[in-house]
Amino acid sequence: MVSKNYYDVTQWAIGDPFNDIGEVINSILLDIKKRQKEIDENDGGKPGAVIYIPPGDYHLKTQVVIDISFLKIMGSGHGFTSSSIRYNVPEDEWSDLHELWPGGSRILVDLSGSSKEEAAGAAFYIQRSGDPRISSVEFSNFCIDGLHFVDDGSDETNPENTYTNGITGIHVASANDSFRITGMGFVYLEHGIISYHADALTIHDNFIAECGSCIELRGWGQASKVTDNLIGAGFKGYSIYAENFGGLLVTANNVFPRGASCIHLEGVTRSLISNNRLHAFYPGMVILDKNSSENSISSNHLLHDHEPWAPLQGRNNGLDDTFGLLSINGNSNTVIGNHFSEIIDKDQISPKGATPVIIHVVTGNGNYISNNHIVATKSELTSSDSCFASQVEALLTNDANEALEVKTVLIERQSFGNTVLDSGSEAQVELDKEDNAFRATPTPAKHSILNELR
Amino acid sequence: MVSKNYYDVTQWAIGDPFNDIGEVINSILLDIKKRQKEIDENDGGKPGAVIYIPPGDYHLKTQVVIDISFLKIMGSGHGFTSSSIRYNVPEDEWSDLHELWPGGSRILVDLSGSSKEEAAGAAFYIQRSGDPRISSVEFSNFCIDGLHFVDDGSDETNPENTYTNGITGIHVASANDSFRITGMGFVYLEHGIISYHADALTIHDNFIAECGSCIELRGWGQASKVTDNLIGAGFKGYSIYAENFGGLLVTANNVFPRGASCIHLEGVTRSLISNNRLHAFYPGMVILDKNSSENSISSNHLLHDHEPWAPLQGRNNGLDDTFGLLSINGNSNTVIGNHFSEIIDKDQISPKGATPVIIHVVTGNGNYISNNHIVATKSELTSSDSCFASQVEALLTNDANEALEVKTVLIERQSFGNTVLDSGSEAQVELDKEDNAFRATPTPAKHSILNELR
Amino acid sequence: MVSKNYYDVTQWAIGDPFNDIGEVINSILLDIKKRQKEIDENDGGKPGAVIYIPPGDYHLKTQVVIDISFLKIMGSGHGFTSSSIRYNVPEDEWSDLHELWPGGSRILVDLSGSSKEEAAGAAFYIQRSGDPRISSVEFSNFCIDGLHFVDDGSDETNPENTYTNGITGIHVASANDSFRITGMGFVYLEHGIISYHADALTIHDNFIAECGSCIELRGWGQASKVTDNLIGAGFKGYSIYAENFGGLLVTANNVFPRGASCIHLEGVTRSLISNNRLHAFYPGMVILDKNSSENSISSNHLLHDHEPWAPLQGRNNGLDDTFGLLSINGNSNTVIGNHFSEIIDKDQISPKGATPVIIHVVTGNGNYISNNHIVATKSELTSSDSCFASQVEALLTNDANEALEVKTVLIERQSFGNTVLDSGSEAQVELDKEDNAFRATPTPAKHSILNELR
Repeated sequence: MVSKNYYDVTQWAIGDPFNDIGEVINSILLDIKKRQKEIDENDGGKPGAVIYIPPGDYHLKTQVVIDISFLKIMGSGHGFTSSSIRYNVPEDEWSDLHELWPGGSRILVDLSGSSKEEAAGAAFYIQRSGDPRISSVEFSNFCIDGLHFVDDGSDETNPENTYTNGITGIHVASANDSFRITGMGFVYLEHGIISYHADALTIHDNFIAECGSCIELRGWGQASKVTDNLIGAGFKGYSIYAENFGGLLVTANNVFPRGASCIHLEGVTRSLISNNRLHAFYPGMVILDKNSSENSISSNHLLHDHEPWAPLQGRNNGLDDTFGLLSINGNSNTVIGNHFSEIIDKDQISPKGATPVIIHVVTGNGNYISNNHIVATKSELTSSDSCFASQVEALLTNDANEALEVKTVLIERQSFGNTVLDSGSEAQVELDKEDNAFRATPTPAKHSILNELR
Repeated sequence: MVSKNYYDVTQWAIGDPFNDIGEVINSILLDIKKRQKEIDENDGGKPGAVIYIPPGDYHLKTQVVIDISFLKIMGSGHGFTSSSIRYNVPEDEWSDLHELWPGGSRILVDLSGSSKEEAAGAAFYIQRSGDPRISSVEFSNFCIDGLHFVDDGSDETNPENTYTNGITGIHVASANDSFRITGMGFVYLEHGIISYHADALTIHDNFIAECGSCIELRGWGQASKVTDNLIGAGFKGYSIYAENFGGLLVTANNVFPRGASCIHLEGVTRSLISNNRLHAFYPGMVILDKNSSENSISSNHLLHDHEPWAPLQGRNNGLDDTFGLLSINGNSNTVIGNHFSEIIDKDQISPKGATPVIIHVVTGNGNYISNNHIVATKSELTSSDSCFASQVEALLTNDANEALEVKTVLIERQSFGNTVLDSGSEAQVELDKEDNAFRATPTPAKHSILNELR
Repeated sequence: MVSKNYYDVTQWAIGDPFNDIGEVINSILLDIKKRQKEIDENDGGKPGAVIYIPPGDYHLKTQVVIDISFLKIMGSGHGFTSSSIRYNVPEDEWSDLHELWPGGSRILVDLSGSSKEEAAGAAFYIQRSGDPRISSVEFSNFCIDGLHFVDDGSDETNPENTYTNGITGIHVASANDSFRITGMGFVYLEHGIISYHADALTIHDNFIAECGSCIELRGWGQASKVTDNLIGAGFKGYSIYAENFGGLLVTANNVFPRGASCIHLEGVTRSLISNNRLHAFYPGMVILDKNSSENSISSNHLLHDHEPWAPLQGRNNGLDDTFGLLSINGNSNTVIGNHFSEIIDKDQISPKGATPVIIHVVTGNGNYISNNHIVATKSELTSSDSCFASQVEALLTNDANEALEVKTVLIERQSFGNTVLDSGSEAQVELDKEDNAFRATPTPAKHSILNELR
């Protein structure tokens, strides 16, 4: 016998978790609430419960709706495997594969097409009005699998490459406090995690990949952390998005392609984006937009190169190479100690003949841009049928390629009071020196050497 | 049947965990020790045990005393919710609230007033003399709730705002090795975690807030990490404190108000404080005191603004705005790549008319202070009845406020051999140029622009 | 009753886990595979399983061989304690010790001497050919203990100090995806973790110490993270090693002595090594070799001092003090914002009378080395019988020692296009100024002050 506050979905009397785990969990939630009412409320305690999902394949046909605090849903396996690679293996080779699907404690979300409304497509939907805000809901170590993408007209060859299916893994609709999402796997969802109005949210050590967008912090929020995750969105979506947020910490993430952006901030202030390894196939890797101000972008490693995998080549996010790998609309931000590698084919630059831009202050005053190291080299676009092999090959190729001419920093007119230090030579940095401060990175006495390198 | 080394507090024959979980756990510890003696000691193995606390409300009337290695105590829910907010909601509105208390696997500590001695007020007390040091005790994913603060004369209106109750969550009194505290919740304790003489301690991914002090590493210690936590102490206490420590790593923490300091180090050497997001309502956010030397403070984001929440306005930590947001007494420290936002009301500056100081070397030689970006703006003190809303509003407010004059770096006389680079203009940095090295941050050609900004 | 996909090793009918947990787990794996074949394969799901190891001492006489995805093996206790210290306590004092061995959910690996082939000495061996790559195998919160080191001729006094026994904790031999190793303890293994061809690997929050080498990422790999670990290898081995890797993130680790290197990279590109606290007794703390390029080494804290513990004094890694604490063979790397403390006995410098080197570019072009703070002081070699006390004492000793003359940066001839900024004085940096760019750290007007310090 175990505590009444410990539920195993495979042991619950109502419903069949393998057929519809949504029905089972909702029924468990009813039981928790019923028992909370019955308890002597001397101290009013409502400690919540834990729901355990052992490894297994569990279809979800009914959305789980959560409106109680202190609920933990946990499995024993984040279960990620690449569906994207497999969907681009010819089907007649599937019988040779060891396995076809993700696994672990795996939720198979069968909600697709159920509705046009975004919230209706969420496997886990959390909403509570009134006070206090819903608190301490935890998701840990299971897999949410959206199974298929669908034809949205964007891919004539293979609808499984569209990143569209209307399905969300976890959707938190109302103001929330001290939630935790850790050790989870998210795969083939149009949206991995959506959270509105988050306070003290932890998104830590998850695997969120092959999703349209991975993490979206919407509405507004504060004092949260997105740390130590492996993340990679689709070509249309965000790996990490936040709006109107204060005090966000985004650190120690390894963000891989192919998101339209790695980190996209709108109206975000006084936040720290540091120490992330970011890799993208398009410009606009990190975007600070809509007056995002007083943030620090420091000690990150950013790599932009070309998509080497044939099935997804030809996609883009619509941004030109003059957009910047880091683009800023905002004031008083700090950009220190970042490494940028720009590895692109001169013939693929858009618009044709343009000089690519690395750090771009579109509008903004008082930004401090210092000690960033930009490495730019020409590389020919190649193509491979194997996703993994092609990426490894591309990553490990660092022959002494020819230097590529770039603007390391571009401060647009009408921006003033910005400071640019040691982030490029006189020729590489473009700004109005009357309105902004500038110190060029020193160059060797032999200028020919420099020209050879840059 | 499960292993004899797995205990569930709700299944144990002795005591009632809901009435006194302390009695239950102490009785389990006796059982573990009794069985260890009985085991054939060919290889002398004493593997320890795990004690599981399912979600639920467990009163603790007897202190848990731990003197064996390899003990894991774990729950299924860190259970944090804000008691501070609720205690400042009028009681006649409590019946409208969804819940009143923290939850999850929750220990309700009923030790208050039991003693004047600090150690007696600890829910979990770990002490062992002799050799080897006690090792590998782990606490994971449960909640320790001190329930109430008490009247200590500091708050006439509401004793629940005093941060005083004599209760500690975890108190490690003797030298210890390889302890782990992860995924826990700590709330309404005068001291969250106290650890003396720690080696290779992990405090990772916890939620430690609304405690007098959160983490105190006392005595001495080495080679430990405080990483990826959400932390916020009371106005009298420390969020993170360490003394006589070598090789401490404090990184990826999101420290929110209202601690007297965010990070306070005394006699700490060769440690790394990087990559933290720090927010405080008072000066003295990061203090390196008592000859703390050869530490690196890098890539942090520090925000100092005013308390916007009415019930706790008027508190302070007794430090003037000339104290510095970062204050150093020590040698050969490194301060690189930090962002500081100082957002204060000119009329609230103390002492009246003073120029606030950001980085302050009180005494110390050979410190290297480079590429720090200081943003200082005037903002009027406002007040709100809602804690969450007010903080969000304050954080998101970044209108083009008027610049505030500050000393970005102040090196006091008698300090020499310090280096200050690109961390403020000639006017903003005060030091003896004979004894210290200085390079001003370059300014735009149009000086009027600069004056407009600063 | 629990799910069929949940196995407890102490409940399994075949074999005795205390006598040979390898036989038990292999038998469970057979059962999982047999049941996978029986399942209706409408959707081809093979979710895997979890195998639970309660706290206890489990001998492993048969290697565990894993060839299925989505397997989680987990315990309830990482169980680290120092065997190294205990093996250097006189045996007649052992009876006074509280415990002799590591604990928790502990695997005692009895494979030593079973074979000369490295793979045969692995407790857990993972290998699968064909497609897809094996995915999502997880190891969590148990202890792998190699028990003894053996006489290899390197230590006449105590064979337990050799770091040699042919045993590996986890050996992943074939290409793998999305593996997780978290919360584990590794002790007294010649190799802690070996992984070939890793993609999206997570090695997070483990305790890996007193192993010959701790983490070895071999072959090639990409997009992985080694984060937030406590790590300390033996004098012959690597704490963290990677070869031919792209997109590796090594951050927030606390690496303590006595590894031959803390981080050793060969042919690694576009990776981020940031924010680590590193401590070593020998030069060559961080090595970028074999054309490791476009990496960023930023915001780390590196301490090199002497071994204070008598039983392991006299060891070294064969490198001279002119090798560099950070040594680079490669192009276009970034080295920003690191703190180095070099604390050595002038009489112990090798070769005799040489000037120690801190950052050493052996060959390489286009490297950007900026804003590194090097502190170098003389300290007399001391010796102690107690490992812990001696290390603490050494760490906390920071008297105003006499400055030690060092080369803060040395760029060897034939290297060009490198940039060295604010990382040492004219006298401390050696490079060809025709071929490389240089800006000295400014010095105080009173030069005597500087000389006093350096």
